[in-house]
Amino acid sequence: MNPKLPMSLPLPSRPGCEVRGRCEALFVEAEPHPETRAVSEIALDLQGIPGTRHYGFTRKAGPREPWYKRGMEMRSGRQITIVSREELAAIAALMAIESIAPEWIGANIVVSGIPHFTLLPPGSRIVFPEATIVVEAANAPCRITGKAIARHLTPDAEPGGIDLAFPASAKGLRGVVASVERAGTIRAGEAITVKVPPQILWQAD
Amino acid sequence: MNPKLPMSLPLPSRPGCEVRGRCEALFVEAEPHPETRAVSEIALDLQGIPGTRHYGFTRKAGPREPWYKRGMEMRSGRQITIVSREELAAIAALMAIESIAPEWIGANIVVSGIPHFTLLPPGSRIVFPEATIVVEAANAPCRITGKAIARHLTPDAEPGGIDLAFPASAKGLRGVVASVERAGTIRAGEAITVKVPPQILWQAD
Repeated sequence: MNPKLPMSLPLPSRPGCEVRGRCEALFVEAEPHPETRAVSEIALDLQGIPGTRHYGFTRKAGPREPWYKRGMEMRSGRQITIVSREELAAIAALMAIESIAPEWIGANIVVSGIPHFTLLPPGSRIVFPEATIVVEAANAPCRITGKAIARHLTPDAEPGGIDLAFPASAKGLRGVVASVERAGTIRAGEAITVKVPPQILWQAD
Repeated sequence: MNPKLPMSLPLPSRPGCEVRGRCEALFVEAEPHPETRAVSEIALDLQGIPGTRHYGFTRKAGPREPWYKRGMEMRSGRQITIVSREELAAIAALMAIESIAPEWIGANIVVSGIPHFTLLPPGSRIVFPEATIVVEAANAPCRITGKAIARHLTPDAEPGGIDLAFPASAKGLRGVVASVERAGTIRAGEAITVKVPPQILWQAD
């Protein structure tokens, strides 16, 4: 094989594949931030969920992007927040609490049946019957979300308990942020297909 | 280690890293499609290169997305086309031709110094002094581009030569399509840094 062809590089790779799962539940923004409330369907357009804080092709840079000036307008990549039912249960088990409600932590969509959901590579497509969503990145668990969980479970506790346990336990399990590729209405209970693109583990040499 | 933690999964992975390279040349749309012409700088905004065919947060679905209705408005992901000087030379060697000019094949940016450029994982950031571009996907080499190369090298030949050799030889070497994350002016000759995110080779089991 020609040594210039990337196929002959000694880089671990996998072909693309499809996995079937289910949209368990849907949520839209509620008070206080970052909480959401359950709805039976959401009409997605290409900017996300109309009328919500994360709607838009762009957003302002914040503490997640310390390399940009705070408030600078940037490409969003965070229109939609998706979590996995199985991974929420795994985080709760690691935190030794009974459960974490998706609406406590800002989730818009809960899926089930997708193994290692948070580890899906960016560019994976989550295909609903009428809409398609593109995975942008794993969502980094933060202390604000930890505080939101603590508010429900230990409202009288001093900081330093559940608020800190969440970011420590949820790494690699907190779901993904995503953008809408095809607009349309998504409904709780719908079957979904995740299209994982071909993957190559890039390295410099 | 807790078996529920993804870190204990037997999935090949790599930490994030940074690689330094150079922006060799810049190009904007020209006639006939898909050709481009050299410029010394481009003022990128969050929709891409103002005034060009690929400008916009959205685009119409085409033959690259046969699963969508032709003409459906969809998320773009193809604002900017980037190729690597070293990979263009590798394609030319495989095709047994002297060289491929980036302006024949629709490139907006030519970079150098980034190994396996086309294989960069989606979500890699290409950081210029004033702007940042996000890699969306490897660009699939197509016969339209092959025809554009043939028009320059073998204008009198029947179809079935260079036009077909290009998509066969350029797989994994044809560069990437990308979106603008941070607006700003990019200039030929600038140093760039590619920030490759942590990678995990996802699999279902």
